[in-house]
Amino acid sequence: MKKQASQPSAFHLNTKASSKLAEQEGKRPDLGFGTQINNHNTRLINKDGSFNVRRINGSFAARLNLYHRLIVMSWPKFFGCVLGAFLVANCLFASLYYSVGFDSLTGVQAHTSIEWFWEAFFFSAQTLTTVGYGRISPVGPAGSTVAAIESLIGLLTFAVATGLLYGRFSRPTPRIRFSTNAIFAPYLDINSWMFRIINERSNQLVDVEIEVTMSRFEKGTDGRSARRYYSLALERRKITFFSTNWTLVHPITAESPLYQCTPDSLNESEAEFLIILRALDDTLSQLVHLRYSYRYDEVLWGRKFKPMITQLDHDNIILDLQALDDMDEVPLNE
Amino acid sequence: MKKQASQPSAFHLNTKASSKLAEQEGKRPDLGFGTQINNHNTRLINKDGSFNVRRINGSFAARLNLYHRLIVMSWPKFFGCVLGAFLVANCLFASLYYSVGFDSLTGVQAHTSIEWFWEAFFFSAQTLTTVGYGRISPVGPAGSTVAAIESLIGLLTFAVATGLLYGRFSRPTPRIRFSTNAIFAPYLDINSWMFRIINERSNQLVDVEIEVTMSRFEKGTDGRSARRYYSLALERRKITFFSTNWTLVHPITAESPLYQCTPDSLNESEAEFLIILRALDDTLSQLVHLRYSYRYDEVLWGRKFKPMITQLDHDNIILDLQALDDMDEVPLNE
Amino acid sequence: MKKQASQPSAFHLNTKASSKLAEQEGKRPDLGFGTQINNHNTRLINKDGSFNVRRINGSFAARLNLYHRLIVMSWPKFFGCVLGAFLVANCLFASLYYSVGFDSLTGVQAHTSIEWFWEAFFFSAQTLTTVGYGRISPVGPAGSTVAAIESLIGLLTFAVATGLLYGRFSRPTPRIRFSTNAIFAPYLDINSWMFRIINERSNQLVDVEIEVTMSRFEKGTDGRSARRYYSLALERRKITFFSTNWTLVHPITAESPLYQCTPDSLNESEAEFLIILRALDDTLSQLVHLRYSYRYDEVLWGRKFKPMITQLDHDNIILDLQALDDMDEVPLNE
Amino acid sequence: MKKQASQPSAFHLNTKASSKLAEQEGKRPDLGFGTQINNHNTRLINKDGSFNVRRINGSFAARLNLYHRLIVMSWPKFFGCVLGAFLVANCLFASLYYSVGFDSLTGVQAHTSIEWFWEAFFFSAQTLTTVGYGRISPVGPAGSTVAAIESLIGLLTFAVATGLLYGRFSRPTPRIRFSTNAIFAPYLDINSWMFRIINERSNQLVDVEIEVTMSRFEKGTDGRSARRYYSLALERRKITFFSTNWTLVHPITAESPLYQCTPDSLNESEAEFLIILRALDDTLSQLVHLRYSYRYDEVLWGRKFKPMITQLDHDNIILDLQALDDMDEVPLNE
Repeated sequence: MKKQASQPSAFHLNTKASSKLAEQEGKRPDLGFGTQINNHNTRLINKDGSFNVRRINGSFAARLNLYHRLIVMSWPKFFGCVLGAFLVANCLFASLYYSVGFDSLTGVQAHTSIEWFWEAFFFSAQTLTTVGYGRISPVGPAGSTVAAIESLIGLLTFAVATGLLYGRFSRPTPRIRFSTNAIFAPYLDINSWMFRIINERSNQLVDVEIEVTMSRFEKGTDGRSARRYYSLALERRKITFFSTNWTLVHPITAESPLYQCTPDSLNESEAEFLIILRALDDTLSQLVHLRYSYRYDEVLWGRKFKPMITQLDHDNIILDLQALDDMDEVPLNE
Repeated sequence: MKKQASQPSAFHLNTKASSKLAEQEGKRPDLGFGTQINNHNTRLINKDGSFNVRRINGSFAARLNLYHRLIVMSWPKFFGCVLGAFLVANCLFASLYYSVGFDSLTGVQAHTSIEWFWEAFFFSAQTLTTVGYGRISPVGPAGSTVAAIESLIGLLTFAVATGLLYGRFSRPTPRIRFSTNAIFAPYLDINSWMFRIINERSNQLVDVEIEVTMSRFEKGTDGRSARRYYSLALERRKITFFSTNWTLVHPITAESPLYQCTPDSLNESEAEFLIILRALDDTLSQLVHLRYSYRYDEVLWGRKFKPMITQLDHDNIILDLQALDDMDEVPLNE
Repeated sequence: MKKQASQPSAFHLNTKASSKLAEQEGKRPDLGFGTQINNHNTRLINKDGSFNVRRINGSFAARLNLYHRLIVMSWPKFFGCVLGAFLVANCLFASLYYSVGFDSLTGVQAHTSIEWFWEAFFFSAQTLTTVGYGRISPVGPAGSTVAAIESLIGLLTFAVATGLLYGRFSRPTPRIRFSTNAIFAPYLDINSWMFRIINERSNQLVDVEIEVTMSRFEKGTDGRSARRYYSLALERRKITFFSTNWTLVHPITAESPLYQCTPDSLNESEAEFLIILRALDDTLSQLVHLRYSYRYDEVLWGRKFKPMITQLDHDNIILDLQALDDMDEVPLNE
Repeated sequence: MKKQASQPSAFHLNTKASSKLAEQEGKRPDLGFGTQINNHNTRLINKDGSFNVRRINGSFAARLNLYHRLIVMSWPKFFGCVLGAFLVANCLFASLYYSVGFDSLTGVQAHTSIEWFWEAFFFSAQTLTTVGYGRISPVGPAGSTVAAIESLIGLLTFAVATGLLYGRFSRPTPRIRFSTNAIFAPYLDINSWMFRIINERSNQLVDVEIEVTMSRFEKGTDGRSARRYYSLALERRKITFFSTNWTLVHPITAESPLYQCTPDSLNESEAEFLIILRALDDTLSQLVHLRYSYRYDEVLWGRKFKPMITQLDHDNIILDLQALDDMDEVPLNE
C-alpha cells in the first residue's frame, strides 16, 4: 500500500473533509427503509407488523415461496388447500385406475362405469391415507403398480402436510398488546414520550429488548422535504423478565429529537414511531420478533398511565389486562 | 433541528439537571417486575421458576393458548386429553355412520342398533388410526365419504398429537439443582453471599451464565416503603463448561448492597434473591433458561460449603450429587 | 510464574520487538482461506455461495455424510433416491417371502412363480407403506415374522424419509438477489465502491448484517505475489429491516485499501470482493447465512444506481424488482 | 443505603484491600472444573470431547434422562431398543387378547393355544404398525377395545420412535479432525504453540470460534500443588469461513504462561490444553460445540506444519485431508 501511495495518484481527493462527510453519513440511523420513501400519508409499518411494501416484477419461483405461504396462511385457507389437494389427487388416481381397466381392482360393487369410478375414488382415498380396508384391492401388475405408487405418494404428501400442520401449530406467535396510544407524559422534572405493553399470554418471555425509531419529514437545505430517521433513547431498553406490564419511556432531554416538539410540529412532520421488539419465548426456546408503529395521530398529549397491578389477593400479584389503556389527564412539565 | 432550536421554545426546561435525573433513573436495574409490587409476604418468583403473577381480563384467544398449554401440561393430563379426544371423535363418527344408515357399512356383526353403534365405533377407531382391518368397510357414496373424511381428519389430528408428543419429549428441561439454602460465608479477607448448583443430568451444558438480582423493601424519602432492585456483582458470572459443581460467589465489598447487612436487616427488608440462568444444552443445541429465587428466610449465616468432588478412583473425577447441601459452620470475617 | 521468571531462561527472546510483530499479525483480517492460495484465475467463492475448495483423501464416513447430502441434493434426485430405495426394498422382501415358501402368503392369485413373486412384491409394497389391504396376508410364523419386521422397518424408514422431506421443505433458503455488477460510484465529495441487494421473497428478513472483504494479490518485499485480505469499512453494515432494497456503500477514504485504485491496478491484482450476509428469517425464526463474491471483471467504473421504489400507488410503497441492475453512467469525483 | 452507612457497622472491613483481593480472584479464568481437581494422571476432557466426570448419588429421574440417552446412544443399541420394545409390546398385547378369550379375534388359523397366541402376536404387530391386513380382526367389545387402544398406543409410540430416529439422524455432528499432536514451532521472531484442524465434511461451517485454556499443576505459596488455569491468547480466535485448514497459533510472548517453558517443565506440571470450538453449521442453521484436549505428552517440540493445499488443478483449490499431520523438524527460535 505504501508503494502505491507514492505513485502519482489517479484521484485528487480533499481527503480530510471527505472522510468527515462519510463518517457523518455512517452515523445516520437507518431501519432499512431509506429516505427515498417520501409520499405523504403512507405508513411504513402496518398495524399487523408487516412492512407497507409491495414487490412487483419478481420471478415466479421467488413469488411462489410455497413453504412460507403455507405457513402464514389462515387456518380455514390451509384446511381448504389440504381438502382440495385430497379431492384432486383422488380424482386423478380414480381416473388412472379407470383407464387401466375394470379388472385392475377386485371387490368393486358397481353396476355402471360411474359407480365404478366412485368406488375407485374411495379406494384411492383409502390408499392415500394408508387406511387400506381391503374390501376393494388391486389385482394384476398394472393396478398394483398404480396402488403402490399412490400409497408412496400419499405417505410422502401427508408427511409434508403433517409437518406443515405442526409447523403452523408450533410457530411462536406472541400476543403482545401495545397501548392504543402513545403519550406525552410528565417524567421526573421533564417530559417524556411513553407507551405501554403487556404479554397477553402466560408464555414466559425473557430477555425482551425494544428499539424505537422516529421517522419524520424534514425540509432539507435545498427546501425539499425528505424522511429522516432518529433513534429514540429509552430509559430502559431491555428487561430480563416480561412478567407484568412494561412502560417504555423516552425522556425528552435536550438531546432528544422530540425536544421542543409541539402537537402542531409533530403533525406537520407526519412523524411515525417505529418499534421493534425482540424476545426469547422461554417455553419453546425460540426467538420472536415483533414490529409495531404509532403515527402522529395516535399520540396523546398530557396523559399518565394508571397502574395495572391490583393486589386483591394476598399471595398473588394480579395484573388486569383490561387496564392497559387506562390513563389520566395531567399537565405536562414546562 | 437547529432551526427549531432558535424558535421560541414551548417548554422551559432546566435541561442540565433534568438529563441527570433521567440518566440516573436509566441506570436503575429492573427485572421487569417494577416497583409497584409492594404487598409484603409475596414471592416474585415461585420455587418452580414461574412468575408469581396472575393475569385477569385477558381475551379468550390469548388465554386459550392451546399449543403452550399442551406442551407444558403434565404427562397424565396430556394422555388424558389424547384419550378423551379419541373417544369423543369415535362417538361422533359412529353417530354419523349411524345417521347415514345401516347399509353404509358392510361386514358389521350386530343384532341390535346398540351393537351396530359399537361396531361403528370400533370401525371409526380403525379408520382414525388408519389401521383399517377391513372386516367392516364402508359401502355406498355416503358411508365412503364419511370414512374418507374421517381418515383424513385422523391422519391430520394424529399428526399434531405426534408432533406435540415429540415436542414435549424433546423439550429441553435441564435439571439443575440449587443448594437448599444460600449462605453468608467468609471469603478471602471479607465475606460473601454464596449458593451452589449442580447439573443432575449427564447432558453437557456449556456457556452457562448467571445473573443475580436482589430485591428488597426500602423506605423512601417520603417514608413509604417500596421495592428496590440491585444487581449483585458475581466473582464469576459465566463458565464455559458446567461439568462439576459451581459455587456462585457475590463478594460483599463496600460497593455491595449487602455491605453491613445483618440477619435482622435482611429479614426486615424481606429480601429476595432472584436468579436467572442461561445455558446451551450441547446435546440438543438448544438454549435453556432457568429461574430460581432465595428468600431472606432461606439464607444461612456463617456457613461454608464442603467440597463435592471425591477421588476414590484413579482415572475418574467423581461428583457426589448428595453432597450439594453439605456445609460446615464457620465464623464470618469481621 | 514469578519463580520461573527468575530461573535461567531457556530462550533468549527479543521480547519487545517480537510481541509487536505478533500483534500486527493478529490484526490481519482472515476469512479462513489463508494466504497459501495463490494460483491465479481461481475464484475463492463460487457464484452459488459455495467455497471453491475440493477435499481429497477424506475418510469414507466423513465423505458419506448421508444426512447432509440428502438435505442439499436436488428435488428430482431426492425423489429418485426414495423411489429407488422403495423398489430395492420391495424386491428384497419379495425374495424373502419367495424363499420362505409359497404358503407364507395367503390370497395370492398366481399361476407361475414369477406371478407369485410379483404378487409378493406388491404385498411387500402394501406392508412397507402400512396400507395393508389384506387381500394377500401372511400366514404361518415365518411369513408373519417377515411381514412384522418389514412393517417395522417400513415405518421407521418412512419416518426418516418423511423427516427428510420436511427438513428439505422447511429449510430456510433466502432468495437475496445481488446486483449483477458492483460499481465504483461518486459518493458525497469522494467516490465509493457499491453494490445493491434485494429480497426477492416476501419473507421478512430482520437484523441483516453484511461483511465485505477484499482479497487481492500483492507483491511482498521478497518480490513474490501473495493473496492479501482487507476488510472494507461499510457506511452501514447492519439494518434492522430488509424491507426494500439496500445499497451497500464502501466510501473510498484515504484509509480504504481501494484508495487511488484504478481499473488497471484492480485487474492486475485480480481482486475479489467476498461478501457474507447474516440475517434472521422472521417467519421461521431461523438464522440464515449467504455468501457472494464479485471479481475484478464484475465491477463497473463510473456508474450510479437508479432508485427502485416507484410510487404509482397512494398507500403502498412499490418496489420494482427488475430495476435492480438499472444504473446511469456518471463521472467519478476526482 | 446512605442511612445504613451511618449506623454502627456490624463488620469491620479492611475494604480497600479486600475489594482488590476479590477483584483479582474474579479475573482468574475458570472453565467450570475448579481447582479442587488435583489427582494427577487424570485428564479433564476425554479424547471424545466428554468431561472426565462421573456423577454418583443422583436421583433416579435425573439419571434416567430418557430422551438424552436415546439420542446419544449408538445406532445398534438404538435399533436393539426399538426391536426389544416392539417384541415386548406384542407379547403383552397377545397375552391380553389371549386373556380376553379365543372369540375376541376372528380369522385366526390355529389348532392349539400356542398357535393362537402366535396368531395374536402377529395380529398385534399388524395393529401396532397400523398395517392391519384384516385376515385376523377383532370382534366383540372386549377384543375391539383392546385393539383400538393398541392402535392408539402404537401410533403414539411410533410417533416418538420416529421423532427420535429423525432427531438422531439430523443432529449436527461435525467431524472436525484435530492434528494428532500440538507443536511448539518457530513463529516470526519468537516461538509459538500451535495445532491444526480441518473439517472432514463438506458441510459449510461458518463463524468458527476457538478458545484454548491451559491447565497445569503449580506449587502454591503453601507448597501444595494445585491446578491453575490460563487462557492462551490466540493470534486469531475466530474465522468467518472454515473452508480449508486452520492453524491455531498461540504466540509465546513474555505475557504467555508458556514463556520460558521447557519440555521438562511442561511434563512436570502435567499440563493439559483444553480446546473449545463453537461454530454454526450453515446447511442446518444449527450451533455446534466441540471439545478437545492435548496433554503434555501429545505435544511435540520444534516442528512445523507442511501446507495442506495442493494446486494440481487450475480452477479448484485442493485440500489433501491426509496431510493434516505432515510436519518438518525445525529448530526453535531462541
